[in-house]
Amino acid sequence: MTEANQKVLESLDKNREAALKRLIEVLEIPSISTDPAHNPDCQKAAEWCAKSLAGAGFEASVRPTEGQPMVVGHYRSDNASVPHVLFYGHYDVQPADPLEEWDSPPFEPRLARDGANGDVLVGRGTSDDKGQFMTFIEACRAWMSVNGSLPVSVSVLIEGEEESGSPSLAPFLDANANELKADLALVCDTGQWDATSPAITTMLRGLAFAEIVVTGPSRDLHSGMYGGPAQNPIRVLASILGELHDSNGRVQIPGFYDDIVSPAPEQIEQWKALGVDETAWLAAIGLERMAGESDHGLLEQLWSRPTAEINGIIGGYTGPGTKTVIPSKASAKLTFRLVPGQVPEKIIKGFKAFVGERLPAGCTVDYLGTGGSPAVGFDVTAPAFRAAAQALEEEWGKAPVLMGCGGSIPIVESFQTKLGMDSLLVGFALDDDRIHAPNEKYNLASFHKGARSWARILEKLAAL
Amino acid sequence: MTEANQKVLESLDKNREAALKRLIEVLEIPSISTDPAHNPDCQKAAEWCAKSLAGAGFEASVRPTEGQPMVVGHYRSDNASVPHVLFYGHYDVQPADPLEEWDSPPFEPRLARDGANGDVLVGRGTSDDKGQFMTFIEACRAWMSVNGSLPVSVSVLIEGEEESGSPSLAPFLDANANELKADLALVCDTGQWDATSPAITTMLRGLAFAEIVVTGPSRDLHSGMYGGPAQNPIRVLASILGELHDSNGRVQIPGFYDDIVSPAPEQIEQWKALGVDETAWLAAIGLERMAGESDHGLLEQLWSRPTAEINGIIGGYTGPGTKTVIPSKASAKLTFRLVPGQVPEKIIKGFKAFVGERLPAGCTVDYLGTGGSPAVGFDVTAPAFRAAAQALEEEWGKAPVLMGCGGSIPIVESFQTKLGMDSLLVGFALDDDRIHAPNEKYNLASFHKGARSWARILEKLAAL
Repeated sequence: MTEANQKVLESLDKNREAALKRLIEVLEIPSISTDPAHNPDCQKAAEWCAKSLAGAGFEASVRPTEGQPMVVGHYRSDNASVPHVLFYGHYDVQPADPLEEWDSPPFEPRLARDGANGDVLVGRGTSDDKGQFMTFIEACRAWMSVNGSLPVSVSVLIEGEEESGSPSLAPFLDANANELKADLALVCDTGQWDATSPAITTMLRGLAFAEIVVTGPSRDLHSGMYGGPAQNPIRVLASILGELHDSNGRVQIPGFYDDIVSPAPEQIEQWKALGVDETAWLAAIGLERMAGESDHGLLEQLWSRPTAEINGIIGGYTGPGTKTVIPSKASAKLTFRLVPGQVPEKIIKGFKAFVGERLPAGCTVDYLGTGGSPAVGFDVTAPAFRAAAQALEEEWGKAPVLMGCGGSIPIVESFQTKLGMDSLLVGFALDDDRIHAPNEKYNLASFHKGARSWARILEKLAAL
Repeated sequence: MTEANQKVLESLDKNREAALKRLIEVLEIPSISTDPAHNPDCQKAAEWCAKSLAGAGFEASVRPTEGQPMVVGHYRSDNASVPHVLFYGHYDVQPADPLEEWDSPPFEPRLARDGANGDVLVGRGTSDDKGQFMTFIEACRAWMSVNGSLPVSVSVLIEGEEESGSPSLAPFLDANANELKADLALVCDTGQWDATSPAITTMLRGLAFAEIVVTGPSRDLHSGMYGGPAQNPIRVLASILGELHDSNGRVQIPGFYDDIVSPAPEQIEQWKALGVDETAWLAAIGLERMAGESDHGLLEQLWSRPTAEINGIIGGYTGPGTKTVIPSKASAKLTFRLVPGQVPEKIIKGFKAFVGERLPAGCTVDYLGTGGSPAVGFDVTAPAFRAAAQALEEEWGKAPVLMGCGGSIPIVESFQTKLGMDSLLVGFALDDDRIHAPNEKYNLASFHKGARSWARILEKLAAL
């Protein structure tokens, strides 16, 4: 490690209290983006972020959008040969309800002791995402205050609509592509493996979706007068969807698994070696048995295997009591989690073929709103990944877990398609942070060691 | 025919407009029994019926129950040797939804021309059951106004919970058995064979019902973070319900067909001789292929074979767009049409066993509101049946078809078990009346000739 970096880490250690005080300041702003009553708070949070970036040495501004404002900051290194990174975070938070389930007011951050986690900060946004993006700003602030410069060129984008679908993000990226384009995006909206183990998220599942409507009779029928000879579309839909999986949890859509690019066997071995307790994982959500492909383990199923999921179904009479109706229509909403190699359009086409083969003569099927986006997988042998992994190992004393993520992070796909950038996903949240729920918390160790990790990563990236 | 009867028929012909006006009055009351918001309308409809009966010469009253009120009317003949009949109808109607599929407001009855049916009255309850029970009241009104008396003793029972399972009926019959017991029940909640052919219904399918709730995870889950290993209760429900029928339309519940008492082969031959055009029957409801047991014909399937029908299903997100949720619960409402020999409790027990065998470990199932009533079959050689058949033949110029009915009329079973009475099922509804569906209608010819038919039946019954 360079002496410059060493001094930055010492500065972070020395100024922990001041950093925590700054975090608490921004947590006290109830910047709930989905609730128009909190629009002034979102504006206030954006201004706070810009001021904080400016204090850390960035040229920062609050930029209006159709929705909540964006915060953009830039630091240009004098050394033209170092990389340029774009850091992404969001200052908006989820609504705090149900309020009565909080042990203290959600926007009055409170220090607490939390079992194995040690000291934690409790409050809305501590983990998602104010605590997370502040780890990065604190790392930059320390670099700047100690050395008068950052090791690489850094731009920062902090949005205020992540919790409400980011409607302004794509137009903003389009309109400011030249300004925001960098060599690599740093995205902090992800987690550690556990409280003492860092992680890099290297793959994100994609998503295809389809809404299917099956029509049987041309009108609703009385099940006494027509029941028997008249086909019931709920029966047809149940019969089709009931065959989506075989008894081993394998999806039966033709060609569904054909294009999958599987993780390297060593990667799968590494996941197995993490020793996740499947029984405890299932018990935490009230289940007993794994429902996915029986020849793949828990982490494989979550991170590297696709799914076919019925997210909603409706047909016939659903009010109180009984109605002896054979409805004309029944419908379902499906999503397919995709893994690298799978093409959303092809999956939807396969699903339609699957349905078509099973549709009884005389029934019809319509599809509403199909679409999707592919999975994202990063090359873990790329120099930036190796650099980040090394930095994390030096800080935490162990190599980071290379994780997958079952869900999609739309910003990652946007950076790839709109700005042609890969993302490095490093974050310090934990599974038990209760994000989106009452008593959200962030470990103080994650906050402090997260900032130290970024301080190390920045220098490693400069050496690429 | 007696001169008295002849005058009654002439009076009915002369007063068609006034009768129609009375029918429209009661149709304008939205007496939807399943919806508590319409309780005042049910009360209003009951009061209207009592007033109408009083106007026709009955001693009539509205009788409170735990649910919707009953209407009871009595006329005692001076001639103690004539039979006493109890006429049954219901003033409550099905919900009108989906409202947008009605061509005119459901509770603003509208005259229309309807192809081969000629003049029809369109509105909720026109056929099920207000138009039907009014044929009888109009017949009595005409007898009374012309002759000052009815040919037999008549009691009338009009309930208001037929469309919501008649919870108050059994207790009411128990509490008023002496008052309501008669020699024969007349039940009008059935149909003609076609627009020019009368019918007597001699067998009714029974009904068993069950609402099933499948619980998977203990809470709603994000399909990205949990999809794959986490079991989805919609998938479980679809998979179970999708196996209810085999590819020949045969119900797969163990023991489902064990206890069936099949109609005599001659009866089945008679039904086949009616020459129903299966293709046309299916085409009329927008279908192409029979969905019931493939080794039984259309009328057999409808009248003498049991069914398993999913009347409603719901689970997960059903609003606009996509929500990537794995819900905690999914539910369905089922009804089973039963034929003579089948025992509702045994069928429900078989269904529960069928579900239990297919339920994945860790999922649970709850049943809400199971119950039912068995099928009914009558002796078609009994004197009252012969008398009614003769009266219908005289009015319509052809002998009535001895039909089965695919629907259950629980009251018929109640009359048999609680009051020891057989029922004579004569009604004037048609298959294309769209009962329980938008644009329900009743043929004006059915309304008028129905009243004339009852006027004739009453006299024939007096001669027994």
